[in-house]
Amino acid sequence: MSVSTQGAIAHFCSFPPLRKSCSGVDGKGTLTYCCSSAKGILLAKDFFHEAVKNALVKAGWTISHDPLSISFGGVDMAIDLGAEQLIAAEKGQEAIAVEIKSFLAQSSAISEFHTALGQFMNYRRALQQWDRERVLWLAVPLEAYANFFRLEFPHLMVQEN
Amino acid sequence: MSVSTQGAIAHFCSFPPLRKSCSGVDGKGTLTYCCSSAKGILLAKDFFHEAVKNALVKAGWTISHDPLSISFGGVDMAIDLGAEQLIAAEKGQEAIAVEIKSFLAQSSAISEFHTALGQFMNYRRALQQWDRERVLWLAVPLEAYANFFRLEFPHLMVQEN
Repeated sequence: MSVSTQGAIAHFCSFPPLRKSCSGVDGKGTLTYCCSSAKGILLAKDFFHEAVKNALVKAGWTISHDPLSISFGGVDMAIDLGAEQLIAAEKGQEAIAVEIKSFLAQSSAISEFHTALGQFMNYRRALQQWDRERVLWLAVPLEAYANFFRLEFPHLMVQEN
Repeated sequence: MSVSTQGAIAHFCSFPPLRKSCSGVDGKGTLTYCCSSAKGILLAKDFFHEAVKNALVKAGWTISHDPLSISFGGVDMAIDLGAEQLIAAEKGQEAIAVEIKSFLAQSSAISEFHTALGQFMNYRRALQQWDRERVLWLAVPLEAYANFFRLEFPHLMVQEN
């Protein structure tokens, strides 16, 4: 798992939204996104899902799977999104799988991080077998990225895995 | 993460209980446990916690932490149990940390496995820094161990991590 340098972590919107429109993919392949509206904390999970989808589409990706289902080794898994983008005619398609974690305020960040890390390890391993070219991204809210993920321990785990 | 050969996974009781008393640690250091009573699914989490504690005590361990709290790199974590046992006078204490996963029927096994793997990776890394001699165990119900953990994918992830 790596942060912006390899585009493995896409960080998107804070909740509640910071400002109206600031989606895009930077030079390092890191997805950043700020939300334009919010309908309440109970809808936050679906809201994040839509926010990430919209940000990817705005950045030129085509959503190919919603969700991306994988069956491997007796287990069924579902990664939140699959997306594809034409890099250059001769190079063909670039493909990603995106797992979206909402890091909602009412649950503790470390609990979400346990699950996110486990999902990331499992999905990456399954993709190795199922679609070796597809790169796995983890999408987290900008607020979680700017605060929790900068702490020493999460930073270390992201670097080491 | 490894299964019985290194005692990293302790598997305990099925829910509902199979038979009255069959706790113990086998020759490979694997904790097995069957429950003697159950008070309903809502209490299952506490019930498992007590079942594992009792099994450890019966196997000669002294519960030293309940929970075992670790602060490292800006994050507070709590592993379910810490336990110690005198191996031999000259060798001193053997120490373990035990994370208990209930794999309750209403949640999907793969979801619990994502969280279990993430917790295991995070706790093992934190223990490396905090108490290098303490070995991390993951306690799962006998039923989950006998069914889900024998599937190809979970088995592979346990072997590789």
